[in-house]
Amino acid sequence: MRPVVALLTDFGLHDHYVGVMKGVILGIAPRVTLVDLVHEVPPGDVLAGALHLDAAVDSFPTETLFLAVVDPGVGTARRALAARVGPWRFVLPDNGLLSAVLDRHPLRGAWSAEDPSFHLPSPGRTFHGRDVFAPLAAWWVDGTDPSRFGPPIRDPVRIPIPRARPVSDGWEGEVLLVDRFGNAVTNLPAPPPGSTAHALAGVFPAASTYGAVAPGEPLAVTGSTGRLELSVSGGSAARVYGLARGTTVRLEVP
Amino acid sequence: MRPVVALLTDFGLHDHYVGVMKGVILGIAPRVTLVDLVHEVPPGDVLAGALHLDAAVDSFPTETLFLAVVDPGVGTARRALAARVGPWRFVLPDNGLLSAVLDRHPLRGAWSAEDPSFHLPSPGRTFHGRDVFAPLAAWWVDGTDPSRFGPPIRDPVRIPIPRARPVSDGWEGEVLLVDRFGNAVTNLPAPPPGSTAHALAGVFPAASTYGAVAPGEPLAVTGSTGRLELSVSGGSAARVYGLARGTTVRLEVP
Amino acid sequence: MRPVVALLTDFGLHDHYVGVMKGVILGIAPRVTLVDLVHEVPPGDVLAGALHLDAAVDSFPTETLFLAVVDPGVGTARRALAARVGPWRFVLPDNGLLSAVLDRHPLRGAWSAEDPSFHLPSPGRTFHGRDVFAPLAAWWVDGTDPSRFGPPIRDPVRIPIPRARPVSDGWEGEVLLVDRFGNAVTNLPAPPPGSTAHALAGVFPAASTYGAVAPGEPLAVTGSTGRLELSVSGGSAARVYGLARGTTVRLEVP
Repeated sequence: MRPVVALLTDFGLHDHYVGVMKGVILGIAPRVTLVDLVHEVPPGDVLAGALHLDAAVDSFPTETLFLAVVDPGVGTARRALAARVGPWRFVLPDNGLLSAVLDRHPLRGAWSAEDPSFHLPSPGRTFHGRDVFAPLAAWWVDGTDPSRFGPPIRDPVRIPIPRARPVSDGWEGEVLLVDRFGNAVTNLPAPPPGSTAHALAGVFPAASTYGAVAPGEPLAVTGSTGRLELSVSGGSAARVYGLARGTTVRLEVP
Repeated sequence: MRPVVALLTDFGLHDHYVGVMKGVILGIAPRVTLVDLVHEVPPGDVLAGALHLDAAVDSFPTETLFLAVVDPGVGTARRALAARVGPWRFVLPDNGLLSAVLDRHPLRGAWSAEDPSFHLPSPGRTFHGRDVFAPLAAWWVDGTDPSRFGPPIRDPVRIPIPRARPVSDGWEGEVLLVDRFGNAVTNLPAPPPGSTAHALAGVFPAASTYGAVAPGEPLAVTGSTGRLELSVSGGSAARVYGLARGTTVRLEVP
Repeated sequence: MRPVVALLTDFGLHDHYVGVMKGVILGIAPRVTLVDLVHEVPPGDVLAGALHLDAAVDSFPTETLFLAVVDPGVGTARRALAARVGPWRFVLPDNGLLSAVLDRHPLRGAWSAEDPSFHLPSPGRTFHGRDVFAPLAAWWVDGTDPSRFGPPIRDPVRIPIPRARPVSDGWEGEVLLVDRFGNAVTNLPAPPPGSTAHALAGVFPAASTYGAVAPGEPLAVTGSTGRLELSVSGGSAARVYGLARGTTVRLEVP
């Protein structure tokens, strides 16, 4: 069985950076299966990276290694992390990228991967994706025990992941991500039949799916991770209502 | 031989949706070779998806499985389809995505893939790419006979694919796709030497290839699928002449 | 060991062109590992393609085949090239795409791949990525000796790669590439401690990495290829200072 390495970065696809990481991995672990998870995380946006990672992990096989690089602190004293969380493996900067996954799955081991013999020699300190994280991922899927990368740690950095809270008539929370279709993924629970979501000037009645209402109509659906999603059938809820990450959302449950 | 699964969606690459579909496939069929065909189909644009699929299939090996998800009716009563067309396999919503391929290749079998034991359990009804189509594709390339997915059908949904028609002095048709270079791919036949294409204010003399005319000059070439393509050497015909899908094109053959 | 084929093109990802090249390769050489290096080279920009290729090759394993298609002269008399340079293999139009790599690594063999039995039959002359370069790459990694593709040549086309030059107080050169983060990659050497780079109205003191200065501050770092890179911590140097390819950069070394 070829190990799966899933890559998440904020490198975008306009440069050669993601391809170069893959070249490094294949030089060390040629039998790996590489999967692009997402590379369009907004530059340096650790929270967005953490949310994408959390939304995706459950769909991947046991032992998948997630190589995640959203790393505004590259080259500083922040640690490089190898971690086992739930049934998966992670290699990433220790800056909170794992926070949302750790809110749902147990930490089963973490190491500060500071032994330079598992890094590549490098002219600078700006591309740890290539020089630190890619080789660590490759060595790990190639069979090296992560305890060899450096000392165990118990305190990976956590950043707060916004959570919805119950209010008198339902829930209050916020938009976490806006997707390509203009759907606003929120942190509120799935909308029960008869409930209505409110965000800015928008009123979104609960519906089962986009095609259940007329084109152009707003609706609140149970999104792909089981949470409330605000949409416009055949359109962009984000554009029509000005929704963005952080927009407050209320769900009225009758 | 590892089976090839080629993915075509309107999911774009800014979200984790495509990566998540791949995670599901690898969990069921780890020995597959995954290929991205195109993910930038305009949201919900079934015709564009059908045209891209048709332009691509001939380049892929026998038995390739095309997993195509442009699915504005996700979660409604529209069927999920597993189909054999020509030497390939297809898994897609039954909304016309196969129409252009079916105009050129024989339908050799189709099934309404409604047996939930081949789907994933799902919290909602908005991400059949992950919960229905990806697992069906994976089971099929893993060896499951598609007749187990559900009952055979003979009437996949067809949408009209625009065709050119002969006129007194040549052909009249339209622009089907505009590519990254601003070339306008049409449904007219290849331009014979000495012919001239007309579209809006543009006049495009037949030429063998872009570099055969001076930079900035318009030309009509035989495009990659053997049909008329309108171009500007070293420039964008779409931008210079305002060409877009549906723009009428006439080809004058002397 | 599965051979690695790394693809670099100016095809973008909005069309099916890259996917189609992969389909052709897998039809001939099913056991290959395909890697996307970069597909967003500006249309027809051979110099940009050459620079990306040069920045990436060192990270890839020995025997990797780079399939590079930035080809404004497609279908004209320009040659199709199969070449061994350093420990790698290249298949590409003979238009200078290899120039930057050849400035650093020895040419170990090159062939004008003109034997049509290694090309695909094609309706037109506009998509040699699919009809010429992809099959050549596939035959080569599948074991065909490149000397069978056509006659050996010794004079691949070279284009000038801009080089920095020493001046009285340091170096003068230019911006080569601007990346997604707005970092300006230059052709100047790494900035020693205490040095300062100047570009347009920007003053960039040498620093070790982005996080070593306050957010919003400009800095000059040793970039990933060991050369001077102009940045703004947590921001875009290109946007703030209007840097673009060709912008003159001076490095003052005290």
